[in-house]
Amino acid sequence: MNFKDLNNKALISDSDIDWEDLGAGVKRKIMAYDDNLMLVKVEFEKDAIGSIHNHPHLQMSYVAKGSFEVTMGDDKKILNQGDVFFAPSNVFHGVVCLEAGLLVDIFNPYREDFLITSP
Amino acid sequence: MNFKDLNNKALISDSDIDWEDLGAGVKRKIMAYDDNLMLVKVEFEKDAIGSIHNHPHLQMSYVAKGSFEVTMGDDKKILNQGDVFFAPSNVFHGVVCLEAGLLVDIFNPYREDFLITSP
Repeated sequence: MNFKDLNNKALISDSDIDWEDLGAGVKRKIMAYDDNLMLVKVEFEKDAIGSIHNHPHLQMSYVAKGSFEVTMGDDKKILNQGDVFFAPSNVFHGVVCLEAGLLVDIFNPYREDFLITSP
Repeated sequence: MNFKDLNNKALISDSDIDWEDLGAGVKRKIMAYDDNLMLVKVEFEKDAIGSIHNHPHLQMSYVAKGSFEVTMGDDKKILNQGDVFFAPSNVFHGVVCLEAGLLVDIFNPYREDFLITSP
């Protein structure tokens, strides 16, 4: 299933959705969204980078697998499976993947740009 | 650390936060929140139940471990590690834990009632 069929879908199996290859060792899978909330899996190979960036959307991320050095504003911390980070609106943040891993990123409101730029 | 010190905290290790025992095989750990977003871990023993209920808050849940029979309105589906469900505003939903598991629940806005009822 393409994520464009996902809007407002309620019970989603991982196998329902295809990965999008973003290149440089990073893959993305939009799992669920409506206007106010979006849940996205992002898989990183070791040493892959989520470049420092910001956005007005609130973001919370759950480390589902692996290990990441997470930068949040002026802070930096290594987060492992089971840990969480919160990116407030417009705060610059990024990750470096230390051990192959998976982030579950949640956004409020949803990332309209993810839908536009995806195939 | 008690979750009351969490508001707006950005980089949170699992070990920073204590579990709250909700009884009947269910434990909860509020990992992060601000006014618009809250991320909560809920651990279930096998056969533990998240009773059918509803709330105006949007909810997305990531199955981090185990297996759950998830009811959403008139639908029912077994979801396993890596799967996701979305509870739209006021839609009745609930879970039965089939294999000991962990849900990562995200709410928009945050669940004020979780802060009030917790110790």
